[in-house]
Amino acid sequence: MAAPADGLPERVTVVEVGPRDGLQNESAPVEVAAKLRLIRALAAAGLPVVEAGAFVSPKWVPQMAGTAEVVAGLPADDGVRYPVLVPNLKGYEAARAAGVSPARGGEIAVFGAASESFSRRNINCSIAESLERFAPVVARARADGLRLRGYVSCVLGCPYEGAVAPAKVAEVAAGLTALGCDEISLGDTIGVGTPTAAVAMLEAVAERVPLERLAVHFHDTYGQALANVYACLQRGVTIVDSAVAGLGGCPYAKGASGNLATEDLLYLLHGLGIATGADLNAVAAAGREISAALDRPPASKVARALAAAG
Amino acid sequence: MAAPADGLPERVTVVEVGPRDGLQNESAPVEVAAKLRLIRALAAAGLPVVEAGAFVSPKWVPQMAGTAEVVAGLPADDGVRYPVLVPNLKGYEAARAAGVSPARGGEIAVFGAASESFSRRNINCSIAESLERFAPVVARARADGLRLRGYVSCVLGCPYEGAVAPAKVAEVAAGLTALGCDEISLGDTIGVGTPTAAVAMLEAVAERVPLERLAVHFHDTYGQALANVYACLQRGVTIVDSAVAGLGGCPYAKGASGNLATEDLLYLLHGLGIATGADLNAVAAAGREISAALDRPPASKVARALAAAG
Repeated sequence: MAAPADGLPERVTVVEVGPRDGLQNESAPVEVAAKLRLIRALAAAGLPVVEAGAFVSPKWVPQMAGTAEVVAGLPADDGVRYPVLVPNLKGYEAARAAGVSPARGGEIAVFGAASESFSRRNINCSIAESLERFAPVVARARADGLRLRGYVSCVLGCPYEGAVAPAKVAEVAAGLTALGCDEISLGDTIGVGTPTAAVAMLEAVAERVPLERLAVHFHDTYGQALANVYACLQRGVTIVDSAVAGLGGCPYAKGASGNLATEDLLYLLHGLGIATGADLNAVAAAGREISAALDRPPASKVARALAAAG
Repeated sequence: MAAPADGLPERVTVVEVGPRDGLQNESAPVEVAAKLRLIRALAAAGLPVVEAGAFVSPKWVPQMAGTAEVVAGLPADDGVRYPVLVPNLKGYEAARAAGVSPARGGEIAVFGAASESFSRRNINCSIAESLERFAPVVARARADGLRLRGYVSCVLGCPYEGAVAPAKVAEVAAGLTALGCDEISLGDTIGVGTPTAAVAMLEAVAERVPLERLAVHFHDTYGQALANVYACLQRGVTIVDSAVAGLGGCPYAKGASGNLATEDLLYLLHGLGIATGADLNAVAAAGREISAALDRPPASKVARALAAAG
């Protein structure tokens, strides 16, 4: 593989969010056994980070029921990181009780927003309150030696407020970093961004949080995700989130595309000469299997092209 | 609308190829009346160039039957350019007989390839022979005052040969320009390109043909089209081809995506602050109507998101 062009990174860490962010937004819950097959296949395909589940109430989020069993069944000592989302201290304790630990690649993720309206509707508190709620989780996780990922949603637009100021995103990202998050994932939750806006947001955040700690998380609702990824790679981003088979769709526009598909992202990165450690065909095979379980075709152009090519 | 970021053009000419390149590759032929409704709607939506049809044998390409009637029914004096594809002198004479003229926005397009195998299989002659065949067409068109567009296909890969050298693309583009083509459209016919390769190809061609005469024509088979467009815009390209509703699919991989959807392209360009003169909602409405006629949803993420948003 040729070296990447000037300005592009040599290597990118792809954070696979399909088993959590993806499956959480699918209408039909998936059995624990099928989740574990998916996670194992993605890890075996060489993806270095696979988000494994969420310790949230199964009453509110039935798709994440069984996350404790999923954690118990994760491969140990394979060098892969397996973040789990926790909304509060109760969730954190459940995660620990289930066996989330540094020795087994365990990692904790918390989920905030850059939009007040979204924060209130999604996690039922203000942004400031959400940071207060995360503080003891982060403190405990750090004491337990667990790495921490902080999500910031609505970084390029909010379904309720519209435009979101880059300064607001930077403020929330800096707040999560000050609490103790090791990495911040910047999410265009409704997929409305285009490259100039994405780069402006990224640069505003990078003034307050070191660039090497920033991940970009684009949704492909308007087909812009890969153009945005490319623009952010040019500015030095080295961590990109995606979901195999585009799992999850868009909860804010039924029938529209949601998460950027990992297959499409890997095709871009490998085409640019950027190393990921992942095997595209193996990832696509995992995507076909989970899509079959969900009874729909993979939401990935690469997956469809590979299938069409036989 | 904010001005585009440094390095990006202020304005881009979107060349709508749906009624020809798109419909030619749909399995079901569309009635002349439906084609005319589509073309009129696209022109009324502000697209400056709408490829109207092809003067080819209806025996070989039944989808392009009735192009003479289409040309006869085109709006006159609306300032929109309406290229038609002609494969040879016989096609050129048919185009002229049908009324293709400079006064009515008439324009001629010829279709070559950067791959010998593709040229032989697609137009049944070598690349050199294709240029010889185009020479009298181009000469006649110039004498008649008609603008000329030359397509080069397989610029980033060939379904039969695999890799295609940028130098070969440059040679064919220079050959078409030397014959008298005013504009060269560089087509990634099988959609395999990624931005670094696209830019390397573009730069090789721009050494032999002025950049302002070059159009890029990406297929979205692997979801890379918009990332490639963005990279080429950064290098100064100001002409981009696309097909409303992603008409045409991919003839080389059944079920895969083909032409970049005009809706997705306009969303990118407008998001970047680049003027096009086109109304995205009006283009999307035209896409929904032709997609209904073809009995399938538009192959455009923007179209689906707009529909989902209600």
